[in-house]
Amino acid sequence: MTVLLYDGRDFGRDAWVEAVLHHFADCEVRVAPQTGDPADIDYVLVAGPQFTPLGTYPNLRGVLSQWAGVNHILADATLKPGIPIVRMTDLSLKTGMTEYVTYHVLRHHLRAPDYERQQRERVWKPLDAPMAPNRTVGILGLGTLGRDLAERLVHLRFQVRGWSRTRKEMEGVTCFAGTGELQDFLRVSEILVCLLPLTPETEDILDADLFAALPRGAYLVHAGRGPHLVEADLLQALADGQLSGATLDVFREEPLPVGHPFWTHPNITLTPHMASLTRPETGIAYLREAFEALERGERPASLVDREAGY
Amino acid sequence: MTVLLYDGRDFGRDAWVEAVLHHFADCEVRVAPQTGDPADIDYVLVAGPQFTPLGTYPNLRGVLSQWAGVNHILADATLKPGIPIVRMTDLSLKTGMTEYVTYHVLRHHLRAPDYERQQRERVWKPLDAPMAPNRTVGILGLGTLGRDLAERLVHLRFQVRGWSRTRKEMEGVTCFAGTGELQDFLRVSEILVCLLPLTPETEDILDADLFAALPRGAYLVHAGRGPHLVEADLLQALADGQLSGATLDVFREEPLPVGHPFWTHPNITLTPHMASLTRPETGIAYLREAFEALERGERPASLVDREAGY
Ligand SMILES: NC(=O)c1ccc[n+]([C@@H]2O[C@H](COP(=O)([O-])OP(=O)(O)OC[C@H]3O[C@@H](n4cnc5c(N)ncnc54)[C@H](OP(=O)(O)O)[C@@H]3O)[C@@H](O)[C@H]2O)c1
Ligand SMILES: NC(=O)c1ccc[n+]([C@@H]2O[C@H](COP(=O)([O-])OP(=O)(O)OC[C@H]3O[C@@H](n4cnc5c(N)ncnc54)[C@H](OP(=O)(O)O)[C@@H]3O)[C@@H](O)[C@H]2O)c1
Repeated sequence: MTVLLYDGRDFGRDAWVEAVLHHFADCEVRVAPQTGDPADIDYVLVAGPQFTPLGTYPNLRGVLSQWAGVNHILADATLKPGIPIVRMTDLSLKTGMTEYVTYHVLRHHLRAPDYERQQRERVWKPLDAPMAPNRTVGILGLGTLGRDLAERLVHLRFQVRGWSRTRKEMEGVTCFAGTGELQDFLRVSEILVCLLPLTPETEDILDADLFAALPRGAYLVHAGRGPHLVEADLLQALADGQLSGATLDVFREEPLPVGHPFWTHPNITLTPHMASLTRPETGIAYLREAFEALERGERPASLVDREAGY
Repeated sequence: MTVLLYDGRDFGRDAWVEAVLHHFADCEVRVAPQTGDPADIDYVLVAGPQFTPLGTYPNLRGVLSQWAGVNHILADATLKPGIPIVRMTDLSLKTGMTEYVTYHVLRHHLRAPDYERQQRERVWKPLDAPMAPNRTVGILGLGTLGRDLAERLVHLRFQVRGWSRTRKEMEGVTCFAGTGELQDFLRVSEILVCLLPLTPETEDILDADLFAALPRGAYLVHAGRGPHLVEADLLQALADGQLSGATLDVFREEPLPVGHPFWTHPNITLTPHMASLTRPETGIAYLREAFEALERGERPASLVDREAGY
């Protein structure tokens, strides 16, 4: 069995290679670009968006993704139908995302930037702000990540709303489903969190129409994928005051170009696609289990639905 | 029945008076300094540290505190022994404190200030940081506020430790009790939260010895009372790198004097004693219930133990 590893990240690369060598010790592990004969390759492990078209490997049996979002893999038209794609949904991914979004929700909720400004100006003044039971948070996407986040925000006593393709039931969360209920969901979302996968249906979803449906002064936390967001519409909504601010972790072009207006916008907080990083220790162990399930002819936990597109 | 209201806060004063008038509509409500004859006063409602010595009221039957901490009331030597003091522990107080501390814990945990610096410098670089399951948070005080916080931090998957006077048991929390176990508790607290009441035993507890017992680079979130902290020792611990930073909501002198070095310290985040503000709607309803319990000769939920000092 031969496993080929593509690793596009500039952070912690060695740890990944080591984890793969450890967990796939019974396989021959090759690290791109040292591919050898393409016909040898049984499995490809993919992280970032850079990899050779997967049709290059005539005997490919499966693709294992170190990321939760697999839009970059599905975009590869050379990948034969029927080849299983497994995506990452290990515990560390949920943990990291829930921490990240909870932090940025609380930051806006508690008016922390206003207090930081007051500190710089040496102003001692408690500010008025609602408490969590009087604040609604709407989550676009109630999948592995959205559900974990929703549970924790409920425990922190926020009013939590969620939106997904198929209807969900969650204790303490008002659930909306499908495009027909999107407007109702948006109308009550003072803080909107995007945790959707990128598909043809969700591309450009964060646009002027969506922003206009939110309560005035709403806040956006976007940790889905760059192409969900129509960047010019965000800038306009911020200029109009329809949105009061945004936290962005993902962008159409990554790294975000140095000249991009987001870097210096006073109401945009941005982070370098780090909201949730898969950890080598747990991540590769997770993919090893999926690999074994595939080899036994079973369905691994997080098999991508190529039809649905995520 | 005559109720006298002292309200020291500069924020939301009218709402308080209105709530008292509403919930004590069957009583005569006087608002200081319009006290009238001191002999008329049956109950005093106290918020901030400003009020006339309580011995002034010869027929006083009870003191109702709009704050959770009552050290300012216990410091009044003119208050006769045996007069019951009820302190605030309504849901809004817990909610607010849990939100505040969770935010400041996550801010340090996620290295948010480093990412803000990177944004200012247009640097795109994910940073290494442990996840919650590999981060310990130690809470000084497992009372109404500490327990609520501990539960939420456990749900966010932090390793939570707590310290109290009498031994506690809490699922997912390693509990330490008494001065004999303080060192063991501190040794494992990478983020230390102070939610103690101010008593002779806890005054000056946040000093050089305590900081030295923490893991190097620990972070302090202090929302107890100003006199818990030896300010010069904090500045020294920050200068030495023994502490990496601190969030402070309470100070020896409030408002914090304009010339105080904390205002401009690069590693101190400060807020104007707003971590948890009692809300008039719920707060006065809570005190009304306690008042009725006292009048029925029953023990209200949050009667202060004058012996223990909190
Ligand atoms: N920034 C980061 O560091 C980072 C890290 C990891 C993941 N992500 C992003 O987060 C996304 C979600 O991850 P996940 O593991 O939670 O995915 P998931 O388990 O597949 O969940 C996706 C959720 O989105 C919903 N959804 C999909 N298409 C929809 C549509 N057209 N209309 C309404 N709802 C729709 C799904 O609805 P159903 O439940 O009905 O299927 C599901 O609830 C990833 O795809 C990726 O884009 C970002
Ligand atoms: N910054 C703000 O906005 C704000 C707002 C509200 C409250 N506060 C502060 O928070 C404090 C705590 O409030 P709370 O309602 O949680 O009080 P509480 O219910 O009385 O709890 C106090 C906790 O501290 C522990 N404790 C007291 N003395 C101790 C000692 N000598 N050694 C070890 N542990 C000791 C108690 O131990 P036992 O459980 O064994 O009794 C208890 O766990 C208040 O007193 C006030 O100072 C600040």
